[in-house]
Amino acid sequence: MTFEVTVLGTSSALPAHFRHPSAQLVNHNHTYLLFDCGEGTQMQLQRFGLKRSKIEHIFISHLHGDHYFGLPGLLTTLNLLRHEKPLHLYGPPALETILKTQFQASSLQLQLDLHFHPVPMESPSILVDNEAVTIYSLPLQHRIACVGFVVAEKERERKYNPKAGHEYGVPVEAINAIKKGADYTQPDGTVIPNRLLTQDPLPPRKYAYFTDTLPLTHWDAYLQGVDLLYHEATFLQEHAERAAHTHHTTALQAAQLAKRNQVGALLIGHYSAKYTDLTPLLEEAQSIFPHTQLATEGETYAIG
Amino acid sequence: MTFEVTVLGTSSALPAHFRHPSAQLVNHNHTYLLFDCGEGTQMQLQRFGLKRSKIEHIFISHLHGDHYFGLPGLLTTLNLLRHEKPLHLYGPPALETILKTQFQASSLQLQLDLHFHPVPMESPSILVDNEAVTIYSLPLQHRIACVGFVVAEKERERKYNPKAGHEYGVPVEAINAIKKGADYTQPDGTVIPNRLLTQDPLPPRKYAYFTDTLPLTHWDAYLQGVDLLYHEATFLQEHAERAAHTHHTTALQAAQLAKRNQVGALLIGHYSAKYTDLTPLLEEAQSIFPHTQLATEGETYAIG
Repeated sequence: MTFEVTVLGTSSALPAHFRHPSAQLVNHNHTYLLFDCGEGTQMQLQRFGLKRSKIEHIFISHLHGDHYFGLPGLLTTLNLLRHEKPLHLYGPPALETILKTQFQASSLQLQLDLHFHPVPMESPSILVDNEAVTIYSLPLQHRIACVGFVVAEKERERKYNPKAGHEYGVPVEAINAIKKGADYTQPDGTVIPNRLLTQDPLPPRKYAYFTDTLPLTHWDAYLQGVDLLYHEATFLQEHAERAAHTHHTTALQAAQLAKRNQVGALLIGHYSAKYTDLTPLLEEAQSIFPHTQLATEGETYAIG
Repeated sequence: MTFEVTVLGTSSALPAHFRHPSAQLVNHNHTYLLFDCGEGTQMQLQRFGLKRSKIEHIFISHLHGDHYFGLPGLLTTLNLLRHEKPLHLYGPPALETILKTQFQASSLQLQLDLHFHPVPMESPSILVDNEAVTIYSLPLQHRIACVGFVVAEKERERKYNPKAGHEYGVPVEAINAIKKGADYTQPDGTVIPNRLLTQDPLPPRKYAYFTDTLPLTHWDAYLQGVDLLYHEATFLQEHAERAAHTHHTTALQAAQLAKRNQVGALLIGHYSAKYTDLTPLLEEAQSIFPHTQLATEGETYAIG
């Protein structure tokens, strides 16, 4: 079952060196989630051959422009394209007013089935909870209210063994219940325990998206066992003072956090315009946590 | 004296085929004017090696997103870059509220010396009038209030002939007055008429930026003698009904307007996402008005 993230933007506030502001498209079993929507996101989606029309959920971390200035354009485009699926938008409460003001000025007749869900910015909150995933927000510590997001897969179904099923005469219509853990009772009353018919499923996977923030310790319980952690690493440790002043994280600090929580892999991004070459950021993080990669626009990273 | 326009965006509402929404940078003797600011304009400026920091005046034609969704990002960037020159912004009155709402949400401390000038949307209006140029707006006819802009050079100085000046013993300090049309009086009282010392200046040049609009006749008096007319040509004539319905212009109609007003050259743009290949639009316009060019992103066009 696909679970991956495609990076669309990697710059911090000042776009430079042909990098674009923050945006990521997560594909979970062909349900598409957009995290942040910096200016140019709709063009980046096109550039990398990703269908804008497939997006079902959009999450905005905070209201600094490099995280949402592409949203009005993307929504206008989806509206023009007569996007028919419901579109769920999660973001800071003030986002709704911003969008309404803009749509009103352009006399836009929104045909989109758009549902705005204000995110509580001061406490953890479950935003999506369906059969496949739970998605929740966690308050981060930035210059303005900002949240991180975690996409946690639900326990996956048990892996059905068709050979064993055939052997015990399991009819097709019984398989779904077996995958969910039921035993099978044969017509003569013999009970075939589930463990003879299935294997343990792969463990559920988790993705965390943490930007923009000071490095935090108080969400460690949520980050332990995360398969892929995207964490901003705006600065090198030699600019730690600047990072602290602007409420950002260094590559070293992101790596320490990844190591402490034993995440599967770390993806860093939100690079300052200071750095043309990103290798020093990567090397700094890898010196602490080897399973680090640089977020690169257009690249897709497996989760788990 | 430089007078030219660099095209940054050529798409209409739906960005497609790697085209970007409307924006143009006009350079008049190293004063930089930005016309419209669609999403991604700041990245387009960078891409084409144009200094964002040189912009002194920004003109927004109307509040459809493809003409201004790049403005909050550009202003935020100029603010981060500590842009020090005064920056004059001209646009529909509601633009001010939109920007204020966004800046407030991001707690942006605007250090920019930004001056917002609301443009009267219902009548012609002089927006800039200095020694070098007059810039005015003209109401167009679109689905929402929209204006076109004309940049008209002031009468240029007479061309001083240094050889004649030397012959008649003109001192350096007299030259400025002579360029403005004064005669020169020699120490013995002999008057040297200006025409012996100067040549007629080149005629003042004019640039007009007309998008988005139905084709209009009532501004013909303003368009006559324009050196370069940028006019939207969203559709081919075969889609004239769609053009009329959406309040746009066809390539044929733009060419007719250019021909009727004997403009020096016509630049068409604001192409519908319908058209991957733009040659038919060019050919249609050139069949009526041969001096037509297709606006191409990154290209610079001389005015006059």
